[in-house]
Amino acid sequence: MKNTQFAVIGLGRFGMSLINELSRMGYDVLAIDNDEEKVQDAAETATHAVQADAMDEQALKSVGIRNFDVVVVAIGENIQTNILSTIILKEMGVKTVVAKARNALHGKVLEKIGADLVIYPERDMAVKLARSLVSRNILEHIELSPDYSIIELITPKDFIGKSLVDLGVRQKMGVTILAIRHSDEIIVAPRASQIIHPGDVLVALGKNADLQRLGEMES
Amino acid sequence: MKNTQFAVIGLGRFGMSLINELSRMGYDVLAIDNDEEKVQDAAETATHAVQADAMDEQALKSVGIRNFDVVVVAIGENIQTNILSTIILKEMGVKTVVAKARNALHGKVLEKIGADLVIYPERDMAVKLARSLVSRNILEHIELSPDYSIIELITPKDFIGKSLVDLGVRQKMGVTILAIRHSDEIIVAPRASQIIHPGDVLVALGKNADLQRLGEMES
Amino acid sequence: MKNTQFAVIGLGRFGMSLINELSRMGYDVLAIDNDEEKVQDAAETATHAVQADAMDEQALKSVGIRNFDVVVVAIGENIQTNILSTIILKEMGVKTVVAKARNALHGKVLEKIGADLVIYPERDMAVKLARSLVSRNILEHIELSPDYSIIELITPKDFIGKSLVDLGVRQKMGVTILAIRHSDEIIVAPRASQIIHPGDVLVALGKNADLQRLGEMES
Amino acid sequence: MKNTQFAVIGLGRFGMSLINELSRMGYDVLAIDNDEEKVQDAAETATHAVQADAMDEQALKSVGIRNFDVVVVAIGENIQTNILSTIILKEMGVKTVVAKARNALHGKVLEKIGADLVIYPERDMAVKLARSLVSRNILEHIELSPDYSIIELITPKDFIGKSLVDLGVRQKMGVTILAIRHSDEIIVAPRASQIIHPGDVLVALGKNADLQRLGEMES
Amino acid sequence: MKNTQFAVIGLGRFGMSLINELSRMGYDVLAIDNDEEKVQDAAETATHAVQADAMDEQALKSVGIRNFDVVVVAIGENIQTNILSTIILKEMGVKTVVAKARNALHGKVLEKIGADLVIYPERDMAVKLARSLVSRNILEHIELSPDYSIIELITPKDFIGKSLVDLGVRQKMGVTILAIRHSDEIIVAPRASQIIHPGDVLVALGKNADLQRLGEMES
Amino acid sequence: MKNTQFAVIGLGRFGMSLINELSRMGYDVLAIDNDEEKVQDAAETATHAVQADAMDEQALKSVGIRNFDVVVVAIGENIQTNILSTIILKEMGVKTVVAKARNALHGKVLEKIGADLVIYPERDMAVKLARSLVSRNILEHIELSPDYSIIELITPKDFIGKSLVDLGVRQKMGVTILAIRHSDEIIVAPRASQIIHPGDVLVALGKNADLQRLGEMES
Amino acid sequence: MKNTQFAVIGLGRFGMSLINELSRMGYDVLAIDNDEEKVQDAAETATHAVQADAMDEQALKSVGIRNFDVVVVAIGENIQTNILSTIILKEMGVKTVVAKARNALHGKVLEKIGADLVIYPERDMAVKLARSLVSRNILEHIELSPDYSIIELITPKDFIGKSLVDLGVRQKMGVTILAIRHSDEIIVAPRASQIIHPGDVLVALGKNADLQRLGEMES
Amino acid sequence: MKNTQFAVIGLGRFGMSLINELSRMGYDVLAIDNDEEKVQDAAETATHAVQADAMDEQALKSVGIRNFDVVVVAIGENIQTNILSTIILKEMGVKTVVAKARNALHGKVLEKIGADLVIYPERDMAVKLARSLVSRNILEHIELSPDYSIIELITPKDFIGKSLVDLGVRQKMGVTILAIRHSDEIIVAPRASQIIHPGDVLVALGKNADLQRLGEMES
Repeated sequence: MKNTQFAVIGLGRFGMSLINELSRMGYDVLAIDNDEEKVQDAAETATHAVQADAMDEQALKSVGIRNFDVVVVAIGENIQTNILSTIILKEMGVKTVVAKARNALHGKVLEKIGADLVIYPERDMAVKLARSLVSRNILEHIELSPDYSIIELITPKDFIGKSLVDLGVRQKMGVTILAIRHSDEIIVAPRASQIIHPGDVLVALGKNADLQRLGEMES
Repeated sequence: MKNTQFAVIGLGRFGMSLINELSRMGYDVLAIDNDEEKVQDAAETATHAVQADAMDEQALKSVGIRNFDVVVVAIGENIQTNILSTIILKEMGVKTVVAKARNALHGKVLEKIGADLVIYPERDMAVKLARSLVSRNILEHIELSPDYSIIELITPKDFIGKSLVDLGVRQKMGVTILAIRHSDEIIVAPRASQIIHPGDVLVALGKNADLQRLGEMES
Repeated sequence: MKNTQFAVIGLGRFGMSLINELSRMGYDVLAIDNDEEKVQDAAETATHAVQADAMDEQALKSVGIRNFDVVVVAIGENIQTNILSTIILKEMGVKTVVAKARNALHGKVLEKIGADLVIYPERDMAVKLARSLVSRNILEHIELSPDYSIIELITPKDFIGKSLVDLGVRQKMGVTILAIRHSDEIIVAPRASQIIHPGDVLVALGKNADLQRLGEMES
Repeated sequence: MKNTQFAVIGLGRFGMSLINELSRMGYDVLAIDNDEEKVQDAAETATHAVQADAMDEQALKSVGIRNFDVVVVAIGENIQTNILSTIILKEMGVKTVVAKARNALHGKVLEKIGADLVIYPERDMAVKLARSLVSRNILEHIELSPDYSIIELITPKDFIGKSLVDLGVRQKMGVTILAIRHSDEIIVAPRASQIIHPGDVLVALGKNADLQRLGEMES
Repeated sequence: MKNTQFAVIGLGRFGMSLINELSRMGYDVLAIDNDEEKVQDAAETATHAVQADAMDEQALKSVGIRNFDVVVVAIGENIQTNILSTIILKEMGVKTVVAKARNALHGKVLEKIGADLVIYPERDMAVKLARSLVSRNILEHIELSPDYSIIELITPKDFIGKSLVDLGVRQKMGVTILAIRHSDEIIVAPRASQIIHPGDVLVALGKNADLQRLGEMES
Repeated sequence: MKNTQFAVIGLGRFGMSLINELSRMGYDVLAIDNDEEKVQDAAETATHAVQADAMDEQALKSVGIRNFDVVVVAIGENIQTNILSTIILKEMGVKTVVAKARNALHGKVLEKIGADLVIYPERDMAVKLARSLVSRNILEHIELSPDYSIIELITPKDFIGKSLVDLGVRQKMGVTILAIRHSDEIIVAPRASQIIHPGDVLVALGKNADLQRLGEMES
Repeated sequence: MKNTQFAVIGLGRFGMSLINELSRMGYDVLAIDNDEEKVQDAAETATHAVQADAMDEQALKSVGIRNFDVVVVAIGENIQTNILSTIILKEMGVKTVVAKARNALHGKVLEKIGADLVIYPERDMAVKLARSLVSRNILEHIELSPDYSIIELITPKDFIGKSLVDLGVRQKMGVTILAIRHSDEIIVAPRASQIIHPGDVLVALGKNADLQRLGEMES
Repeated sequence: MKNTQFAVIGLGRFGMSLINELSRMGYDVLAIDNDEEKVQDAAETATHAVQADAMDEQALKSVGIRNFDVVVVAIGENIQTNILSTIILKEMGVKTVVAKARNALHGKVLEKIGADLVIYPERDMAVKLARSLVSRNILEHIELSPDYSIIELITPKDFIGKSLVDLGVRQKMGVTILAIRHSDEIIVAPRASQIIHPGDVLVALGKNADLQRLGEMES
């Protein structure tokens, strides 16, 4: 699987961070931008970095873009270049083209012209920040269904020193504690007699409303 | 808790998305930008929207910025305004100032001048995208510790029709299945005899390397 | 049929000429542009002229764009606005959207996002000019099939004073003279004995190569 | 005649399309622009492409502009350069100078300073589009005189399965059918007994009003 | 004659100086420019001053430009506006249009489109300065023919205290002294016995070469 | 005298015309400008042309500016450069510095900082044009004193065929005819019996008011 | 003396600081700038603040600039405006005009056109900083003559606990201690037996080289 | 001590003046700016001058910035670069970083991120000018404490020809004359019988109010 080949077109903050992360995970990444300076910066982390116009089919051909498994169009400022580059890549036969959209309308165009995955980084991050600002005790959140979620939760003050059964987490609160992080140790599927200690982090599964109530308790 | 008062300064894509989400969740948000047009756009979703210079202490005073619980400095393009606005807010006594940084150096300045939370949306989203591109079967990911994580996983093809005990998920793979989403139902702490069906989504806890191996199985 | 309602978005030279012609032919036309000055100029010939952003769905709704039979997106300079405006119009349910493309790639995007007719004015006019520069005697040209055409032809010098049968137009040249314009009169399906006079204009049908040879004769 | 030598000054969309078409037809074309990048693009289709200022007489001399049969001044954006380049070419003795005008006033200047042919591509294309939008069944149109025209017409629904004599095309409608395109075949001067089939395209000659009525029939 | 009506279009340094001088001489002048600020400045000396686009025929009509005896197009920076304004004025029927040219080519266009007088202020002033720098003693110069001129001359040192006949101005030098300015008095057609005093200024007529020699004598 | 060495700094229209004229008269001229392109243009007529910043004392030294007899600061657009360049030249010991002023205030600064001659080309040309527009018959004009002038005059219609004495030019009009240009011949100090012919040009001396009356007669 | 009237033209950082200080000292100050926003800012501290063009004599007259005792031309960016404003003020008869120069050449122009005082704030502050960076112990410095100065000095470590006579400040070091600041007290003309305490600040007079040596001692 | 190594980043007027002064005093200075032209200018006075981006840590490392004793961030226009450069230098371990602030807020940021010395040249110079404008006789001023100062004073007219004791400088005025500059001589601690001569300059110590009164006497 480490053989997956990535290319990232557009070396802004998002594109650069993407290259850094993929490289760190051990994957080959080709970095492409029209700005010579950005290409030189990218050359320090990317496997290859080339200066090319994202709308120049000939240039894209010459770097063998067709052979890449995933091409990410991370161009953010220029919607026109973003769209035209995406359609060129699909016309050239690139298997998976991921394109960054500025807004819903832009996203719709990208889908219609064949982008395989359309992403909205600013919107998604804003949603994530909004949630964490509102429920500061909830560190992470996985939505399993519209009703059910898993959350990673800072232990509420009132839980400390009590066992799960005493607290009636499942009975009264309708929530299952899937795991507890106690200092460096992970306790999977804790027993009902498990005592909560200060600094513990809980992984809980339940209905959104019930979890929300947990998240709003003082920690 | 719904009484938490938010203010967002800087109405770019990120700031706007943040306001939309906070409003949708039922919170009061004050939107501030120097650009009259953006302020008008924000007025449709924010509780209040005012045109003001983020570096004009007098203007910030006159909207009572000190009384807001959380002020998010979402100014992205202009690092200078971002920094000066942050220090003004802290000098004025705002309790919690969240500031958006463009890079690590910028983040360090924000921390030194007193920002309570420094965020890097582009970098964080890029990391998230990198992970999902690499392990397409892993839908969500919570890092419990540097070694352990919880993942939401599309069922590998080879699991279908087998029970957890047959598969030896825990014994051979070292992974605990915390929950299974089966059509609209959530099965919490499934028994070892539970059969996996096509379309099921698994929530698994384990060491990162073990989970990674699961994620790389063909689905 | 005079009830067809037209709207033209983008008041550059092409859009303005289009409005002038449609108005001259007796049709109602709504002129839309973001530039106040251009809107005022258009107001002299268009039925209505409004200042609006081509990407502002609300503004387009408020002028009832959905009720127009044909909307022409004549925006030329800004490909992004051209594309986004086109998709908005189709999303809003406009029946026929005609969009002006700058080049083949742009045209492909417009087709994929649903434009009903994509036009390339500069390219088409250039083709027409090229033909007329090359064959100065050929005034007009209709391509019936890849092989056959009808042309409007200035009479070659050598034809003058001779009859069609003498010239062997059909037999030797493989060309049918469909009509002759003789001063103010149109002679339809002229007889073989018809004499050609100086100043006559011939309408001929035949194979392209044969017509081309006619066009290259000295007039 | 293939010896006619063309030069095109100004490599915008119109100039480039002109060069492409002339080259495709087998003629030599010299491409001239002040913008190095455009010259390089043109070099792929034009016989020669040189970077030169359209107002630099010395540069024009050195490419032997005087020896070209036709020089097209396709400069669109800059009226000043367009005018000065045109007068320089005429002063240098170029036999035929074709100049592109932005509007009627500009056209008048071009004529007064000696341009042999003044063209208005945007206006002409807009007129053509207006006509086709209004009469969608009329594919092509040749104006023989202010009263008479030839049109290429999609067969009206009511004509199908009937002969020309039954329809009374000439008698009742005052229109002569000069030719019929029936699948790949062209029927010249069809007999009165000719039956019209679905998909046939008619070439008709008549008075404008009569043809217009034909064009407005449902197809 | 004081009834001559002037209009000056273009209020740069040249246009403004022209208005000042004409006003000082007692004539009515209308000042026109597109720049509101310049119009306000001109309003202090011109009879009327209006803000209008020099290419807007309607605006020119509304100030009754046709009724002015002389319209000076003093627009200097923008050759395009200068040309188009000139042709509009001639098309509107202005009797005398004076146009300022930047160079010979521009001047040729202005003549071809009908300007009644084309002026080259910078070139003419440069010629005048060149002459005065070269022959510092020659204060003024009127060219009567290619060979003969009249000059106004600072008295050469060697002339002082001598009579015209002693000097042999006419005999030896071939030059006629038409007049002498002696302090505040003008001596017309001085006699041969007239003595030249220090500070006298001579008006001399002769062949250019002879005058030049006079001009080069030390004063 | 042909050894006088000139330098012109600032190669705008005025500076270039000055160089052309001085070169044409046979003098050496050094052309200086900061704009490489203008320097290349000037190199075709000037003796030498160098690219240098007019405020860079070192650069001016290295071209030996101190050895030039006359340096003309013809910089027009940038008042600052014009002033600083002038003071540098005087500080360096250039004997005669001629500086072009935009207006009276600018001229006063130039005088105070030591310019030997301050010129106002636009103003002076405007004055000259104003005069010639007002008195179209007066071709040239030399002001001898505030009251007296010499003019070159197109012969008034009423003069033709009459002698000077008949006309009473001196007696009735108070004007002396110094010379008459009759076709290619110059008649100096014409006798009273001299007859005026059509096409003659008169050189007259007199009081300004008297001359003005002559100039206003119909020609 | 508090009746001295000041005006400051140019409201940059320097001009604003000047106004603040003069106002703080109790003087009337008129603030003038062309930028409306800066004028509004200045209005909070200056006695009066008006928006006016520094080169508009009429505007300066209308605020009665002639009656001000001192006018400071603090315009920094635009040398042209700085020079022209200065000459206008002197021409209008302002008694004392202080002008800020960017460099020595600019300063020379200001002097020649009559500025009463020319200042170089950046250069002077840089000199002061250079000195204090080099001799960190020397807090202040007054140059009495090219050889002698007075300095304010942080006590060198080796002086502490010793008397002036023991140290031989005058005899060995050639320096006179004029005063000592001892906590909040100032000891003028201290006696030779005076003991130096930690934290004392010395005011010393002597030759520059001797003082320099003092300044370089470790404190 | 001459071994102190300085670096100055930002070669504006302030930075350049600083380098000039430090070089003149015999210290090594490294000059850094991003603008090649400024670097070349600085190379004439600085020991070394390199072109580098003030925010490029790598570039700063490669010139060994860590080894400099004092680095002055003299960047004035761009607050962002000024701040980021300062934090980089402190992070790299530069011992003493001096940073130039535009205003109080900027200064506060610089202090918080670790600048060792924050300077406000424009403000400080303005304060100094304000004082000298108000008390023209006071040439220099050292503030010893909030109450006491030393001043360098032009002798008041009324002092001339009198002795210190006659004047009662100390008794009546409460001021000590520390020194007198008499032509080229410095009289330290003058006796009471010392007579004041025209042109003498006095160095006086006293309470601010008393000194102020002295400064306001007519000189």
